[in-house]
Formats: sequence, structure tokens, C-alpha cells
Amino acid sequence: MKLFSSVNDVTDIDALVKEALALKQNPYANQELGKNKTLALVFLNPSLRTRMSTQKAALNLGMNVMVLNIDKEGWALELRDGVVMDGTTVEHIREAAGVMGQYADIIGVRSFPGLRNREEDYSEMIFNKFVEFCKVPVVSLESATRHPLQSLADLVTITELKTTARPKVVLTWAPHIKPLPQAVPNSFSEWMCKADVDFTIVQPKGYELCADFTQGATISYNQDEALVDADFIYVKNWSAYEPYGNILGKNEEWMLTNEKLKLTNNAKVMHCLPVRRNLELSDEILDGPNSIVVHEAGNRVWAAQAVLKQMLESL
Amino acid sequence: MKLFSSVNDVTDIDALVKEALALKQNPYANQELGKNKTLALVFLNPSLRTRMSTQKAALNLGMNVMVLNIDKEGWALELRDGVVMDGTTVEHIREAAGVMGQYADIIGVRSFPGLRNREEDYSEMIFNKFVEFCKVPVVSLESATRHPLQSLADLVTITELKTTARPKVVLTWAPHIKPLPQAVPNSFSEWMCKADVDFTIVQPKGYELCADFTQGATISYNQDEALVDADFIYVKNWSAYEPYGNILGKNEEWMLTNEKLKLTNNAKVMHCLPVRRNLELSDEILDGPNSIVVHEAGNRVWAAQAVLKQMLESL
Amino acid sequence: MKLFSSVNDVTDIDALVKEALALKQNPYANQELGKNKTLALVFLNPSLRTRMSTQKAALNLGMNVMVLNIDKEGWALELRDGVVMDGTTVEHIREAAGVMGQYADIIGVRSFPGLRNREEDYSEMIFNKFVEFCKVPVVSLESATRHPLQSLADLVTITELKTTARPKVVLTWAPHIKPLPQAVPNSFSEWMCKADVDFTIVQPKGYELCADFTQGATISYNQDEALVDADFIYVKNWSAYEPYGNILGKNEEWMLTNEKLKLTNNAKVMHCLPVRRNLELSDEILDGPNSIVVHEAGNRVWAAQAVLKQMLESL
Repeated sequence: MKLFSSVNDVTDIDALVKEALALKQNPYANQELGKNKTLALVFLNPSLRTRMSTQKAALNLGMNVMVLNIDKEGWALELRDGVVMDGTTVEHIREAAGVMGQYADIIGVRSFPGLRNREEDYSEMIFNKFVEFCKVPVVSLESATRHPLQSLADLVTITELKTTARPKVVLTWAPHIKPLPQAVPNSFSEWMCKADVDFTIVQPKGYELCADFTQGATISYNQDEALVDADFIYVKNWSAYEPYGNILGKNEEWMLTNEKLKLTNNAKVMHCLPVRRNLELSDEILDGPNSIVVHEAGNRVWAAQAVLKQMLESL
Repeated sequence: MKLFSSVNDVTDIDALVKEALALKQNPYANQELGKNKTLALVFLNPSLRTRMSTQKAALNLGMNVMVLNIDKEGWALELRDGVVMDGTTVEHIREAAGVMGQYADIIGVRSFPGLRNREEDYSEMIFNKFVEFCKVPVVSLESATRHPLQSLADLVTITELKTTARPKVVLTWAPHIKPLPQAVPNSFSEWMCKADVDFTIVQPKGYELCADFTQGATISYNQDEALVDADFIYVKNWSAYEPYGNILGKNEEWMLTNEKLKLTNNAKVMHCLPVRRNLELSDEILDGPNSIVVHEAGNRVWAAQAVLKQMLESL
Repeated sequence: MKLFSSVNDVTDIDALVKEALALKQNPYANQELGKNKTLALVFLNPSLRTRMSTQKAALNLGMNVMVLNIDKEGWALELRDGVVMDGTTVEHIREAAGVMGQYADIIGVRSFPGLRNREEDYSEMIFNKFVEFCKVPVVSLESATRHPLQSLADLVTITELKTTARPKVVLTWAPHIKPLPQAVPNSFSEWMCKADVDFTIVQPKGYELCADFTQGATISYNQDEALVDADFIYVKNWSAYEPYGNILGKNEEWMLTNEKLKLTNNAKVMHCLPVRRNLELSDEILDGPNSIVVHEAGNRVWAAQAVLKQMLESL
């Protein structure tokens, strides 16, 4: 594997999930593979789970890890081409990425969308420039429109904990006070659409995700109906795709509660975290027996390790 | 050892001090113990000595180390329970700590007090929530009311350098321009009260520490009298316990000088650092032959290594 | 080697360059040398290349690395002696450096000049205090007046890529909108003056570097003349030495272009990076076949590794 930016970079999803679950049982068996190999984790935005789980995955594989908060520790990056850099940016992404490719065998990059210009965000300009100019394998640590390491960990978690062959998985929109990216729901949706699950997305009118990511999903606008018999509920807020990056209303009644859980097949509740308590998801759910959010976060290690292992094998 | 938050977590103080001094002679003998074990160092506040010495201690033991400045690199933490998170905090400590416990075998946490609400600070809310929710062994890297790794290093230093069986140790208040926590003097006091030393605390009226930490200490208000025949002087500023977090006056005459040192038994001068020169402690002392502050800081490695070693042995 | 602050600390420049090129061919042969040795990289200013390449070099040698952004993660440093520290600085460089020397076998320090007081900057006060008080070998990661790891990497690059025994090397001033330090051109010049090259410096009147660094160089004010038959062009902006730290005019015509390249012997174009595109150096050069800036940045690893290896051998 030379690139991990979406589900489309994976040739055999089942095999990758099985690899992750096998690594969870036997984390340290491949340390010769990573010996003297360096992973650079480059952050243009904050991170807790992705930062720590990917670092841990690399260490499990015997790799060295260098973490760089590029805007805070390095230099303010210019992302546009052809400009005269006489403003506040100090280094162009062309040089920054090119140089990092000299120091690392694999690079992970996190770059959030601006949520102002949909075309620019959905062209994945920043992430794609990194890939183009660093010239080494790249793992997305969440880009403008996708968060594939999260989605792989989510599929690993569902595979690990499902009690029926083909579980019902519901992605439900949740309230928030700030406009959030569509990266997590886009990505979760495109992974679920390729997995052996019965997949429904439910959201208030106007919050439909870009159709490119939801081919094969059942689309609903009635949360109560959608939750019926659900085995897994994936809770997440996102801002509108059209008008891009907008919040369309409070929709406080969309917050999941124990009352709503009664509609489900005792569903396990997932969230990528961070989660705003009592806004996106209630205390009673997060502190109750149905929440698997911490367990899900733990599986981030094995998802990252499976991807890094396949990348190391292809170096 | 599953928790290192105060002297009360140590079953045999003498043995722990001896372990630290033994590790100083032979730092690399236990690297199999830490192999494939990960220490996460989580900072809610700045750190130099604690950060570097604990990292070095873990590396000496063969561990991997992940350092996280959580508010700057991760997400703004919510610490209160039951609130609707519709403000500036992005992640609750319950999830943050829980998730970190998935990625680390041992966690070190630094969280200073707010110095506004004594009850809240002295309940050690933040530290205790980390311990409760991360579910792995935790080392305090300084909490609201204690700094046990510093105190252990201080006792190691006194044990290493004492020239009499039962040295006289004086903790003296020093001037400062900002209200500082009571964590270092509280902690030093409770360790000294359990050690084989003659221990005096001297401070201006009104700066008495919480009595829970000073049982067995001689309490004085006359610096000149207290310093007579001292073998070790521990210099430190702290703000008042009552009214909590206040500065009660300038008290510039409390700064230690060479003139005052003449009262002592050629006392060695200690300070946890950072120290404000010529405010808390004079140049002439810090640059003179009686200062052992850098040596003392060096012993932070062996204190941390002794604690981590006992934790690794109990995993 | 106990100190690497300038070319004057190197006894045999040729041997050091050869060592760097040999390490490039065989990076992992000396890992026993660095085992259980710790490099602390201390930054008072931002860094990308120096941070990552020196970290990589140390890892290649089997060392442990601790990175500290001291002003952001540690405490605001006081640099002046004899002051009463009742302002915003929290820790004196004497203690900070002394303590770091307790935790590291080798320390790398980056400290930029203030560009306000020439005497202070050129005395290398900060860097020299670190060296004096930390008491372990120190590598400059760029100080007020020099950037020796960069210059060594530059000489390694010229040696590696030259096609004539004694190439013509031209250091040309380039435009910028902010006053930049003289560290890179000073340092490049003093290394070139000791190397087996034909070395010219060309700049607008008023931008002459301090003569201490340029003994043996041809000094020119006519860029077109200077570029004739050049084999390597080193592009860099710097502010005036007199009046110190000033910008004397826009001089936009000094930006290197493909048109100007025609004057040269198909010269390879170098820059230490970060570079402001279309201000210091044009897109057409940076994206064209003559630019070797990314390759040059890659050689930073081998320069740092050669220096660290010699330091480890002298521990």
C-alpha cells in the first residue's frame, strides 16, 4: 500500500480488518519490519486519538516516530500556487512536503477543511499536495473530506463486537453549536457501503451528505424509524453540504437518549470522539452500558498498525 | 505500585530511596522490564524538569514515551460533570482519560491548581478524574496540592549528601511576585515528616500550610532562629492557604543570602526550580558553593525511574 | 568533538564531509555508539529541517531524542545576568541549561538573534551561556550569527554534486520583506572560504557581511557579472550589518530567474529553506531542473549524523 486516503485505496477490506484484529492479539511480532524506518506525523490541526494511536501503532511495529505540529513548531505554510509570498506565510507546502519526504519513510498528515470553499475542500488540495510533493507513502490522519483510519477502526470494532452476521448500522446526525466537517460521516458512510452491513443514514432535511459517499445507503429523515432494530448507532454531527458549512437549526431533539435506545436491538453506541456531552450525546448514554466509544478509540491502534504494516511491506 | 500521587502511596519509603540511588549507579539494567511498554506524559501546564527527567527515566527502563501537551495539541478539556458542553471545551476528561488509558501502560499527569477555589483544588478533582477514568497506573507529575516525584528526588538528594545520621532540614518561605501553589511545600513537608530528619518549617505569619501536611514538623516564624545549625535549607515560595491563594505582603527580607547562611551548619541549599533569581534566591547563593539545585534536579531522573520500575513490576 | 558552533570547531573539514557522505551510504552501522545516549534538542525558535534532520540523525545512531520547545512547553527564560527576576521571565538560562545537562549527553540549541543589538547578537550570549552552564557537548542548531549544520550540509552537497575539481560558488543576496539574520550567509561564507572552491559573494551596496566571515571571498556588487560561469548559486536574503538589522530597499531585481541562469555554467541553485516563492526565488527556478534545494535539505541528516558521531566518540 502506497497511499491510504480512503476506502478506495484498499484492495481487500476484509483482509485489512482481519489483519487489524490479528495484530490486536499479537502486537509486537513485526518489529523487524519497522526497524530503522521512520514515521513522521504532521499536524496542521489538533489531535489526541489519531496522534497517540498512530504513534503507538508505529512503535509496536518497531518504527521511529517524529511528531511535528507544523504551524506551531515549524513555519506558517503557503498552500496556493503561483503567489508572491510577501504576506504571513513563510514556507510553501511544495518545499515543506518535499523536505519531510527526505526525513521519513512514511508520512501521516492531518489537515482539516476551511469549510468556506466547498470546491477547494472537496478537491483535497492540501492533502493531495502533500502526497504529490513528499514522494513517500502517505497516511491520511484526517483530511478535508475523509478520516479513513477512524473508519477502518470503526469497521474493526463492528466486526469484533457484532452478534449477527449482517448487523444493522445507523449513522445518525447529532446537534452541535459549531459547524463541523463532513469528513467523519463521509468516510464512515463509504466504508459501511462496502462492508457486509445493513446501513442507514438519518439526518434532518438539509444535512444530506455528498452523494458520492452514500451509494448503497438507506437515507432517512426520521430518527425514531431509523433506529428500530439497530445493532450499532454511530452518532456524529456535521454541517450542511449545501449551503456549504452551514448550521441549519438547533435540532436539539436529535440528541440520542436512553429512551430512544429502547427502539433499537440494544444497540451499541459509537462516536469518533471528541464528543460534547449533553449536546451531541447525553451523559446517560456515554456513562451507560451501551456506549463503546472508549473501546472504539482503543481500536484505532490496530487500524493504524494494519495500514502501516502494509505500507512497510511495500517499501 | 498502581498509583503514585503522594507519600501515602509508598509502602516502604527507605526502600524506594535506596532503589533510586541504586538505579543512579546502574541505570540500564532493567530494559527488558519496559520493553514494549508505553508511558504517556500528559501536560495541562508547562514543565521542563519533570518532562525531561521522567522521559529519561522511562527510556532508561526501555519504555516508549509519548508526550502530549493536551490543551495545545489535543482538545480543550471539560472537567466538570453534568454540564451541557456548549461552550469552549471540546472534550470531557472522562473520554480523554479513558482513551489515553487505551494507548498507554502508565500515564503521568500534570495539572496545576486554579488557586481560586480551595475546596476544589484540595479535592484533587482533575488528578483524581484522570486516575478514575484512565484505568491504568498513574504517576503525578505535580497535581493541585502535591509534587511527589519532586519530593522523592529531594529525599534522595538529602540521603545522598547528608553528613550526619539525622540532618536538620529547614523549609523556608521565600518572596515572589505571583501567587504560587502550595503543592511543592505541602509535598516536601509530608515526605520530610515521614523521613529520618529533624524538620522545621519557617514562614511569615499567615503562610501556614494546611496542617494535614505538616504533622510532626516544627513550625517557626523566625527565619534566623530556624536556620541555626541547619544542614539543608529548602527554599520555596507559596501563597497563603487562608485567604486561599493570596499574597500577604512583599517580605523581601525573607530572601536567603550568604549572610544568613552563616547561621547554619554550612547548609546545602535546595530549590525545586524554576527559581526567580534575586527575588526568591540570590545570585550569590545560586552561584556559590552551597547551592545543590542542579544536582537536585539531576536526581529527578532516579526518583522517577524508581517509581516507574515499581509500577512496571506490578503490571 | 565537544562543541560544534562554527567551522572553527572542526579540525579536519574534508574528513567530516567524507564522513557525512559515508554515513549516507551506510546510515545504521553505528548504533552501538549511541545506545542509551540521549540528545536533547532545545528550541527557542521554530524549526522544521533542523528539528527533523537532527532527530533522524540521532535515531540512525541509536540515540534517544528529547525535543523541547522551551518557551512554549517549559518556562520563559531570563538571559541577562544580575537582574531581579520580578518581570515575565520565570527561569534563568543558568539553571535551565544546567538542568538540561543533567538529562542529556549532548544538547542541540537553536536561538535566533534579536536583530536589535549587534554587539549582543555577535557576542553569541545565549548560545555561549548554554554551552557554559549545561556542561555537556553542544551542537548549534543555528545561533545568532551562524548555522553550521546547514553550512556543513551545503558543503556536503557541493562535494557530492560538483563536476569540476574546484567549482565556482556564488552566494547571492535575494529580496525579502522582513529583516532576516545574517547567520546563514555568515556561516556559509566562512565554510566556503575554507573549502576548495572559487567563492564569490554578491549583494547590493550596504549589505556587506561582517568581514570576519568573508576572508578570502571575492566581493561583488554586480549580480550579472558574479553569476558568470557559476557552478553553484546559493540564494539567501539577509538584513544589513550596518545599520544593523535594517532593510535598505526593495531590490526586487535581485530575485534569481531562468534568464539570469543563462549566465552560469548551468548552475545548481541552493537555498537553506524556508524560501518565500516569487519573492526570494521564482517558481520557475524552484520547480525547474536546476534547483537542488530539497536534495540539499536531505543532506542535513548526514551532516548532523557526522557531527553527532564525532561527539559520541568523544564522550
